[in-house]
Amino acid sequence: MRIAYQGVTGAYSEAAALRLNASADLMSCLSFEDVFAAVGKRKATHGILPIENTIGGTIHRNYDLLLEHEFPIVGEIKLAVVHHLIVNRGTTLEQIKRVYSHPQGLAQCERFLRRLKGVEIVATYDTAGSAKMIKEEQLMDSAAIASERAAHNFGLQVLQSGVQDHAHNMTRFLIVAQEETPLGPPDKTTIVFRLSNEAGALFKALSVFALRDIDLTKLESRPIPDRPFEYLFYADLSANPEEFRCARALMHLAEFAPSLKTLGSYPAWKEPELPAAS
Amino acid sequence: MRIAYQGVTGAYSEAAALRLNASADLMSCLSFEDVFAAVGKRKATHGILPIENTIGGTIHRNYDLLLEHEFPIVGEIKLAVVHHLIVNRGTTLEQIKRVYSHPQGLAQCERFLRRLKGVEIVATYDTAGSAKMIKEEQLMDSAAIASERAAHNFGLQVLQSGVQDHAHNMTRFLIVAQEETPLGPPDKTTIVFRLSNEAGALFKALSVFALRDIDLTKLESRPIPDRPFEYLFYADLSANPEEFRCARALMHLAEFAPSLKTLGSYPAWKEPELPAAS
Repeated sequence: MRIAYQGVTGAYSEAAALRLNASADLMSCLSFEDVFAAVGKRKATHGILPIENTIGGTIHRNYDLLLEHEFPIVGEIKLAVVHHLIVNRGTTLEQIKRVYSHPQGLAQCERFLRRLKGVEIVATYDTAGSAKMIKEEQLMDSAAIASERAAHNFGLQVLQSGVQDHAHNMTRFLIVAQEETPLGPPDKTTIVFRLSNEAGALFKALSVFALRDIDLTKLESRPIPDRPFEYLFYADLSANPEEFRCARALMHLAEFAPSLKTLGSYPAWKEPELPAAS
Repeated sequence: MRIAYQGVTGAYSEAAALRLNASADLMSCLSFEDVFAAVGKRKATHGILPIENTIGGTIHRNYDLLLEHEFPIVGEIKLAVVHHLIVNRGTTLEQIKRVYSHPQGLAQCERFLRRLKGVEIVATYDTAGSAKMIKEEQLMDSAAIASERAAHNFGLQVLQSGVQDHAHNMTRFLIVAQEETPLGPPDKTTIVFRLSNEAGALFKALSVFALRDIDLTKLESRPIPDRPFEYLFYADLSANPEEFRCARALMHLAEFAPSLKTLGSYPAWKEPELPAAS
């Protein structure tokens, strides 16, 4: 298993990939597009992509890319995100003039950052990449917000731990692959559909699942270019499409949805059980 | 009427404010937060905020801020967005090494930008602000993506017009105010509600509207911090809450939604009719 992820070593996507498979071979990519390209060109067997964070919300761009590239979703993983304020050795809190991180990282530490007076907040493409940069450029008046692993990897110092605003900060990642082989028995399905622009259309779409007791765990809409104010809906269903009721629900939706596509069927993430205390 | 908007002169928010009321007094703000603050401190009577773009999607941050600040929505406006590649006089396409704009502006011109080989794309806080910067710093190897108005205001040159990827590029803006006085007879209502985490909850919520023939023109979800993987739903209803069926629908929803709030009732935007050709 060779997993492509966006970011440099120390990125949360890398941590998620290692949590999925500690012995996997990892491949760092510059952008989400590059993760898809790595899978497409068979440089990686799998790609891992953040899809939503419990504070920052959905990473909508990745829904767009999932549809564009048509690789099946074969798994998901949830990872607790703990942000740290990271500096070059010797830099004190008072010396910090600038804080670098990815916009989602910055958004998740908003209250903490607001308390740092007179500090400029700079958005970058990457949490761990920000740590790498302050190291490489030996910036003694700057800090990065990134993982503890990023601090260790780049020989930086954690000045303050757990600087995120909310204790429960989790990111859910999707795993895509070239081959449609789920990473376990599938009990979750992601679909995308378009509805005709008429009153009650979404209600009708949800009814095909609700009336069959199929739970919808997430619903997200995205605009359709060149169809102003019409939307594509991405939905997560707690079901396997091979189940009779799910297969029938999808057929039912296809009766009136102008487009419907299954993006993948995969095992919903279950936290590994902790070994019992002895 | 004094309208606060985010950006510098030439920003699309400014154009939207002027389209709403050509004789309004305008107030430039650094951030969306500052727009709310301007209304809160009575420095402006109204604030204008982009809420969704037909290519880039929803500006989710503004939903969060709407809920946080509790100013009523009193109107909306839709504006066609036309992006231009803007440079200092004398700069040619071949000389451009860097293109600056707001991430949404960049996303809307993605295909165009991809064709510019060897050019670095730099995300900034502002479309018009990027134009201002290349002027002030006299950057002869850089371009901004912004409005024609921004080019004129800063004495810059439009090198290429209409560089957005899609012809139909519209942004919808919301107008907030201190006073709950809609800008016309209200026929649209925005609500936000939370649902208990149980199967079929969203279907049940939509049914209170669908069964009363109330159209839902938009549904958006946002995460709830400290309630991992639970969501707040923002919905636009084609109805006035003073209508009997809408009032009853909201009462019905409140029976089972742990929280429900009306963010405002206002006139849905109608394109002004063009004067007949003579």
